[in-house]
Amino acid sequence: MAKAKANLKLIEPRLDAETRIHDDHHVSVRLWLRLLACTNRIEGVVRQRLQADFQTTLPRFDLLAQLERAPQGLRMSELSQRLMVTGGNVTGVTDGLEKEGLVVRETDPSDRRAFKVRLTPEGQRQFGRMAAEHEQWVIGLFKRMSPKRKNQLAELLGELKTQISQSPDA
Amino acid sequence: MAKAKANLKLIEPRLDAETRIHDDHHVSVRLWLRLLACTNRIEGVVRQRLQADFQTTLPRFDLLAQLERAPQGLRMSELSQRLMVTGGNVTGVTDGLEKEGLVVRETDPSDRRAFKVRLTPEGQRQFGRMAAEHEQWVIGLFKRMSPKRKNQLAELLGELKTQISQSPDA
Repeated sequence: MAKAKANLKLIEPRLDAETRIHDDHHVSVRLWLRLLACTNRIEGVVRQRLQADFQTTLPRFDLLAQLERAPQGLRMSELSQRLMVTGGNVTGVTDGLEKEGLVVRETDPSDRRAFKVRLTPEGQRQFGRMAAEHEQWVIGLFKRMSPKRKNQLAELLGELKTQISQSPDA
Repeated sequence: MAKAKANLKLIEPRLDAETRIHDDHHVSVRLWLRLLACTNRIEGVVRQRLQADFQTTLPRFDLLAQLERAPQGLRMSELSQRLMVTGGNVTGVTDGLEKEGLVVRETDPSDRRAFKVRLTPEGQRQFGRMAAEHEQWVIGLFKRMSPKRKNQLAELLGELKTQISQSPDA
């Protein structure tokens, strides 16, 4: 299987966000499409591994990850705001996880008309196993880059993130 | 409106992919979440602007962009492979664009059982207008970064992309 994939790569160059670059594209557009290509590639691996190893999806993993950071629970609106990946329907994903006993909806003590969602002990346990594996996948994907280059990349992305936040569009 | 947004930022720090970082998260996981946060932020601006200025969505723009690079047309399978953003249903998006006369499905001359999708002249015209604006948005988002830093970032991301392709997972 790995062999077949390797052969395929020799015949056909990988298509990605950068495939559509024109010669006359501005350097910023090229940079954006390259950033998108890197993100898509890593996200693709994470999606595949979550499916293969845990029969789960990235929006589910993402939702559990946000709840794990908020032991007091989150309102649905807060949860939507924090999700990292697109393509997940927050209500649908929450319903599914609740049915499986990984999350619960509870009345918000500070506002009895509102609900909060939080992890159950079983949800914590299952997420813990997935998060440990997830960390290993990501470490594996970045392992060919030297620590020095990783720091440079983190610094440049930090700079970009701050600059974009200052943009009137963001 | 811009004022209200600015005030909100002062009160509540922006939540994003990095929000869920633990102190004990591995440097590669931090780097990945920062990469994802940058991508999400830019993608968010592009989605908003496409909606506000052209009443269209990113999956539609993305599909038109891929067709514009392939004047001979693309099969649905090729189109799916090339799309950059998730969350779009290729058949549904193609149906919508065909109804509006921006794309056509035609019999593939090399295989009469298969269809190819290509841009109509009207699709080319509309995409051209959107692409020109899109380029300006992206230039605006990156304009606070010096050309030197942009080159460094492009180089590091190129390195990362190559390294990930060599990973057995990718």
